[in-house]
Amino acid sequence: MNIYKQRVSELRTLMQKNNIDAYLILSADPHLSEYLPEYYKNRIFISGFTGSVGTVLITQDEAFLWVDGRYWLQADKELQGSGIVLQKQDVKNTFTKWLEKNLNTNQILGVDFALCPLSLKKDLQKTCKASLKHIDLITPLWHDRPALPKERIYEHEAHYCSYSREEKLKLVRQKMKNLNANTHLISSLDDIAWLTNLRGNDVDYNPVFLSHLLILEDKALLFVDSLKIDSELEKKLNLDGIWLKNYDEIITDLKKLQNTNLLIEPLKMTALFIDSLDKSVKIIEEINPSTHLKAAKNAKEIAHIQDAMIEDGVALCKLFAWLEEAIENNESISELDIDTKVSEFRAQSEYYLNDSFATIAGFNANAAYPHYKATKESFAYLEKDGLLLIDSGGQYKNGTTDITRVVPIGKPNEEQIHDYTLVLKAHIAISSVIFPKDIAMPLLDSITRAPLWQEQLDYIHGTGHGVGYFLNVHEGPQVLSYFSPVLEKTKAKEGMLTSIEPGIYKVNKWGIRLENLVIHTKVENPKNTDFGEFLYFKTVTLCPFEISCIDTNLLDKKEKTWLNNYHKEVFEKLSPKLKDHPKALAWLEKRTKAIS
Amino acid sequence: MNIYKQRVSELRTLMQKNNIDAYLILSADPHLSEYLPEYYKNRIFISGFTGSVGTVLITQDEAFLWVDGRYWLQADKELQGSGIVLQKQDVKNTFTKWLEKNLNTNQILGVDFALCPLSLKKDLQKTCKASLKHIDLITPLWHDRPALPKERIYEHEAHYCSYSREEKLKLVRQKMKNLNANTHLISSLDDIAWLTNLRGNDVDYNPVFLSHLLILEDKALLFVDSLKIDSELEKKLNLDGIWLKNYDEIITDLKKLQNTNLLIEPLKMTALFIDSLDKSVKIIEEINPSTHLKAAKNAKEIAHIQDAMIEDGVALCKLFAWLEEAIENNESISELDIDTKVSEFRAQSEYYLNDSFATIAGFNANAAYPHYKATKESFAYLEKDGLLLIDSGGQYKNGTTDITRVVPIGKPNEEQIHDYTLVLKAHIAISSVIFPKDIAMPLLDSITRAPLWQEQLDYIHGTGHGVGYFLNVHEGPQVLSYFSPVLEKTKAKEGMLTSIEPGIYKVNKWGIRLENLVIHTKVENPKNTDFGEFLYFKTVTLCPFEISCIDTNLLDKKEKTWLNNYHKEVFEKLSPKLKDHPKALAWLEKRTKAIS
Repeated sequence: MNIYKQRVSELRTLMQKNNIDAYLILSADPHLSEYLPEYYKNRIFISGFTGSVGTVLITQDEAFLWVDGRYWLQADKELQGSGIVLQKQDVKNTFTKWLEKNLNTNQILGVDFALCPLSLKKDLQKTCKASLKHIDLITPLWHDRPALPKERIYEHEAHYCSYSREEKLKLVRQKMKNLNANTHLISSLDDIAWLTNLRGNDVDYNPVFLSHLLILEDKALLFVDSLKIDSELEKKLNLDGIWLKNYDEIITDLKKLQNTNLLIEPLKMTALFIDSLDKSVKIIEEINPSTHLKAAKNAKEIAHIQDAMIEDGVALCKLFAWLEEAIENNESISELDIDTKVSEFRAQSEYYLNDSFATIAGFNANAAYPHYKATKESFAYLEKDGLLLIDSGGQYKNGTTDITRVVPIGKPNEEQIHDYTLVLKAHIAISSVIFPKDIAMPLLDSITRAPLWQEQLDYIHGTGHGVGYFLNVHEGPQVLSYFSPVLEKTKAKEGMLTSIEPGIYKVNKWGIRLENLVIHTKVENPKNTDFGEFLYFKTVTLCPFEISCIDTNLLDKKEKTWLNNYHKEVFEKLSPKLKDHPKALAWLEKRTKAIS
Repeated sequence: MNIYKQRVSELRTLMQKNNIDAYLILSADPHLSEYLPEYYKNRIFISGFTGSVGTVLITQDEAFLWVDGRYWLQADKELQGSGIVLQKQDVKNTFTKWLEKNLNTNQILGVDFALCPLSLKKDLQKTCKASLKHIDLITPLWHDRPALPKERIYEHEAHYCSYSREEKLKLVRQKMKNLNANTHLISSLDDIAWLTNLRGNDVDYNPVFLSHLLILEDKALLFVDSLKIDSELEKKLNLDGIWLKNYDEIITDLKKLQNTNLLIEPLKMTALFIDSLDKSVKIIEEINPSTHLKAAKNAKEIAHIQDAMIEDGVALCKLFAWLEEAIENNESISELDIDTKVSEFRAQSEYYLNDSFATIAGFNANAAYPHYKATKESFAYLEKDGLLLIDSGGQYKNGTTDITRVVPIGKPNEEQIHDYTLVLKAHIAISSVIFPKDIAMPLLDSITRAPLWQEQLDYIHGTGHGVGYFLNVHEGPQVLSYFSPVLEKTKAKEGMLTSIEPGIYKVNKWGIRLENLVIHTKVENPKNTDFGEFLYFKTVTLCPFEISCIDTNLLDKKEKTWLNNYHKEVFEKLSPKLKDHPKALAWLEKRTKAIS
């Protein structure tokens, strides 16, 4: 019997014993993280679907998995034999809509509130007629569950930090005061890492550590496995007003809170924690102040980020020079080799720690899936002519990077050149725009897409996401996408680090995405106009585009000027670091020549 | 004693007698129209402020008028001596926020619900702590109140109508069925005029008539002053299933409704009507189906609109040729003369009925106010060099027009040419874009503004509004403005008629706005892409721009091509109609020459 079918069957028995009519299994941990520790991969345990996001719902008669368009093919394959039916998730088909439609008032929906955002619980309370019940039915079934990670926690050196943790706590307490809050609970790991100037290794790619932080007026309590922090670091934290408590003690401590105004962010806080609170605790719901604070990088951070970009650009020049030579020598190169090599070249930097996400190296048709990932079981060799898309990034002590380039293997054809140029036009359009500070970023996205729309093309992902500072490669609150709602928190602020990554994807043919990171920067010499401050996107990523893939007839004068200025800057900043790497230098020099 | 001070004082006495702590006076009629009949100008009666929108609030100690930025100067002047304090309305300062903050649970807020949208009443119920009470305190004070208008109602000839009224009612009943509604009440006058193919003259500029329409499953009841409709027309309406009732009978009839699902639009329906309903009536809240139906013009209407645009373009060529000659002859011309002349030239068309709004003719600094209106008391002569802005439109049997052009008087200076060219670039940017059908239009606005933002300029009004078909010059639901919320109803649909009117306004200098109307049109020869249908804005307004105000160095190749193509079309369509008007033809010919 299929292992997942068996697990679902065992779950149904447990559900019956507990009078649960439907049981919901989310992709979540108690921190509502993007990357989950193995311990929390409940949804993979029950369904076998290994994609990054998906929601399972089990009833006595039915079993569903909702996943978005990225994963339909993969889920279809992985669900085979499990008895779980794939639900193709889109705006109209979501698990919440299913629950709304199919459950009745006399039924009970079981959810593990320890892994459920407060915001979702509230939505379910509004839309789903069934009663909600907090229950964990996975732990009793999962006998060989992996242990929680026990990786060491270390300091982000003061030299690289925008502010000391004392200063950061002070800034947050100021914001708390403005919101009339005297207590603040944070479960989101990037917020905690930023606030404490600590980093860890508990999940892939993001340098975070499992913990909760309770900020009181006179001290802050860090709930964390104390074995991860050595006594010297603990003393330093104590001196800065941060005291350690056991990771598991959080619930006990929350239950003790009384007569306080507690600030939390409902999207980043589990329902269980809020349900544990005494009635005398008043909940203040707002975005975590640290989210805004860490999104707006200050001058010190920006200077470090610009250094990190040089490290990253140097690594990519080496990679592309190596690749060019290997192809010329008819070496057999696969997508997996690219994956290994890009990390190898990055690792030559003294600042590098690890990759900031799983490298996407997709050749030709593989790259038509924006989230393609080569695996040992399924990958392509770079054979014959075609386009290779590489989307990769590094975690450096002085910054997090994320860049996508497309390089031709052999000779690009006319349609490929046309598509590459279109994507470049979209990239330049948004990269060269000036816009009013505080505009909601979804409103800017049409500027990016207009050149593609002109040819009735589009892409189904966002144009840009926020990026952390030696932290998560996906960090809000900004989002540059016309698919995203226009919200207060999506406003453009000075100092934000954002990706710009338009693309064209042609099934069975190729995928082209061109991605740089930009810093939201005040215009130099602002004019005295009546319309407030204006910002522009200062490009900080340093790596040339592929001149051989550009149809210069499609670029206007301004676009050429932007490209030439960018390539000039890239050459000036990277070439001094490539003196001892003549092949990489030659590769760079050839690609940063001005076009006319 | 100032007359308004006295009226406020009398109102306060009435408020005391009725135990009303605060009394709200909105700018509204029972149809929630943009233009109000004299009878309903309560806010002017009590405050003396004559602008188009404003809200008065009276308490025993305080009296306020909230108006938006357009009217601050005017209101300041008109309120003098009234004791009413001007509240400069913006996002943070609204009367609803004031009520939320300043009224207590033991107080009573009086509102005439016959003049209050249901949506506003609901908002007040949520945010204002005071109890709401329906009471009309203006009628007892207003002894010489004007009579309700009694203008004749006439048919919009079948030749010009997209569908017969029978067909239109059928379409609406289909939508009602989809929404599970068996009754539908409409109070908005443009919806009723469109549905019944009738027109009237009860308010300025909009060819509508005071009425309510109750659509039942087997018939429709039109509540209207029966003296306005002759017996022949009444018979025709009866044959089409529409029966007349007295305008005042609506409340009695609404009270009689029982056990029905009633469709209404809360923004376009007064609270009083809904409060009058029996408890067995279930309210279904949705945008009026006729609003969507009439917004999307069909092929027949579009053909007529294109004819109307020729009529309008011809009138403007005559106007500008006359103006050029008059200025050359050193005639003394004022803004008011322009006002008169533009209507005169339009009136030469056999299709013309009246203006579609009050002409804005602003010379130099006057045009810096987007809603400037010359009056007998205050107007300018076109003296010395400068820019004249003319924003005007006509009601033709075959369409409603709205156009803004700016012409130089004497020789434009460098800064004026620069600004004119920038506005033209913004106009061309959005006029030449292709975009996905169903995108919310506020998301497109950044494409218009990007050329202005590049110079840290912007304008504080929207870029575009919907336009009716021989109906209101402002008709939703579409809105092309990044200040507007992204809503389902703001989605771009094929056949919509929308204005495109970016501008630059420099206080004490000039105002430049360039406005055309466009039809949302499917792209010809659609490509088979994965991204659904795409639309573009097909320009239908026919009138040249001012070549003498354009700095061609600031236009790129695509912009020049757009302009030359447009001018070619304008010349081809207008010149045959100007054969007997050599001066106007010469004026047109000179201005539609291709630029390079």
